[in-house]
Amino acid sequence: MTTFQRIVLASRPQAEVHPENFRLETQEIPAITDGQVLIRNHYLSLDPYMRWRMNETKSYAAPQALDETMIGGGAGQVIESKNPKFAVGDFVTGTLGWTEIAVSDGTMLRKVDTTHIPLSAFVGVVGMPGMTAWFGVNQIMAPKAGETVLVSAASGAVGGVVGQLAKLRGCRVVGIAGGAEKCAYVVEQLGFDACIDYKAGNLQADLAAATPNGIDAIFENVGGQVFDTALPMTNAFARVALCGWIAGYNGEETPIRNAVFLLSNRITLRGFVVVENMEFWPQGLSELGLLVASGKLIFRETIADGLAAAPQAFIGLLKGKNFGKQLVKLI
Amino acid sequence: MTTFQRIVLASRPQAEVHPENFRLETQEIPAITDGQVLIRNHYLSLDPYMRWRMNETKSYAAPQALDETMIGGGAGQVIESKNPKFAVGDFVTGTLGWTEIAVSDGTMLRKVDTTHIPLSAFVGVVGMPGMTAWFGVNQIMAPKAGETVLVSAASGAVGGVVGQLAKLRGCRVVGIAGGAEKCAYVVEQLGFDACIDYKAGNLQADLAAATPNGIDAIFENVGGQVFDTALPMTNAFARVALCGWIAGYNGEETPIRNAVFLLSNRITLRGFVVVENMEFWPQGLSELGLLVASGKLIFRETIADGLAAAPQAFIGLLKGKNFGKQLVKLI
Repeated sequence: MTTFQRIVLASRPQAEVHPENFRLETQEIPAITDGQVLIRNHYLSLDPYMRWRMNETKSYAAPQALDETMIGGGAGQVIESKNPKFAVGDFVTGTLGWTEIAVSDGTMLRKVDTTHIPLSAFVGVVGMPGMTAWFGVNQIMAPKAGETVLVSAASGAVGGVVGQLAKLRGCRVVGIAGGAEKCAYVVEQLGFDACIDYKAGNLQADLAAATPNGIDAIFENVGGQVFDTALPMTNAFARVALCGWIAGYNGEETPIRNAVFLLSNRITLRGFVVVENMEFWPQGLSELGLLVASGKLIFRETIADGLAAAPQAFIGLLKGKNFGKQLVKLI
Repeated sequence: MTTFQRIVLASRPQAEVHPENFRLETQEIPAITDGQVLIRNHYLSLDPYMRWRMNETKSYAAPQALDETMIGGGAGQVIESKNPKFAVGDFVTGTLGWTEIAVSDGTMLRKVDTTHIPLSAFVGVVGMPGMTAWFGVNQIMAPKAGETVLVSAASGAVGGVVGQLAKLRGCRVVGIAGGAEKCAYVVEQLGFDACIDYKAGNLQADLAAATPNGIDAIFENVGGQVFDTALPMTNAFARVALCGWIAGYNGEETPIRNAVFLLSNRITLRGFVVVENMEFWPQGLSELGLLVASGKLIFRETIADGLAAAPQAFIGLLKGKNFGKQLVKLI
């Protein structure tokens, strides 16, 4: 093997993402220099934040550059090393990109132990999505036993963990998901107390019925109408962990019409990006890893096969077609 | 004197407040019982929160009851006491109501020293409005020297203190007010670096020009379009002290259209009501009192004459016709 494939950003989407925004390329495997490692990527993680990076507008990170490897987390194995911290055969996770082969200087590359936890989980429940959930629950929402927690995108890689962590704290947990099948999974498998199918057309009535004691904390992945409907149902001193705003990623208008409730219910809302809070990762990953290894935290994956399938899988993710963590299996 | 006048809520406003929503009544001065004091009210404080209490809807406090004395802060003098903590002649502030004479059991009644601070200031800059500013600046915005702070309703009882406290911290302070006269006062008297007249019709361009380094903290009294215009100009990790939403007090639609910036700029927003944070009052009032007594914190008052003038003065306050703290002088 002397070549590998990667996917670059060919053009920026105008609104919705299309397959033509990506381009599959074949490259020579490079020679590594001192301090570098060469990694065979096994699992590419697809996540909603990538949509934002495809835009050219100012955001929390630089836009994805055109004609460069698409940004993305991955989990793989070291196949060559000139870095004393990593040996051939080590399993690692990091920002490897949409590529079969990645070169790393070791920065932000994490060695993982797959004895009790499968490799793919390290880009999911014991990786960035899991840490996103952990940070929102522990550092922003901090829900007490008996409080009601609302989680949008509840069957997703982040939402599913949020709900399970809140259940472990003794909360009443209500999810929002798209479709009866996802809602059934959220309640029956993940153990949420209720799940509302926002596609059923009764969002307001269903949400009110599922939160008889009001809402004390919201983990928001979607924004737009779902969030707006929930705001008037919040209790005094509710907390909002604002993690995603998928409803507006394609440039749609997504106003908060019920903004006055932010004041009248004395809400604390915090937008966050978990990679800006790395100081919490050792503690969080340790806790998440123990929960997964002991079977107290479960997760589901949707796995696309081969790098060429990544664009369609990503487009499906943005439309909610995945079920749990969306991965691309590369080997 | 055996009788006094008071103003009760006669009816709830449908949208805008009208004089007919109030009724002036004459009552007998009651006999006080053990533990009570009788207070001659000198200054009635008029504040925007009262508009909210006039509605019947759920809010942070119970609605103002019909046919009962309108709620309101006041500063006056004890004229009879059966409470060992208060003597005849003591100056006091508390929630006395829209009335010439008030009975108190001493709860939340505060004795004040008028040696270096005028009595009226204790319902303004060294009272609830001043504490509102102090709490937002110190406990929510916590701006550092060199940061840019935006203050709406900048010439008002709260906004004027916010800006001066932020200037004392070494910030660049930009106010928003209605009209050239108020803006001139905000810059020339209160010492803000700039003030934008939102009535001039160039809000977006003027605000962008006045905040060349972006906005690090917002003290929001108004909401609606002003807040919405500022959101995209915030820097990463901006803080919003959400204190008022006057734009929506009459039931107007006041959506936040730029909500996605709460996430993309990782904003922390907190709605608050200062009377729910009484543990900070001793420290805050002490600091504010020293600043006023030493001339480092200035304030302006608009004083209506006599209780019967209160309804029109209040209606004017909601329309921004006051200039600085709105009071009604009763004696």
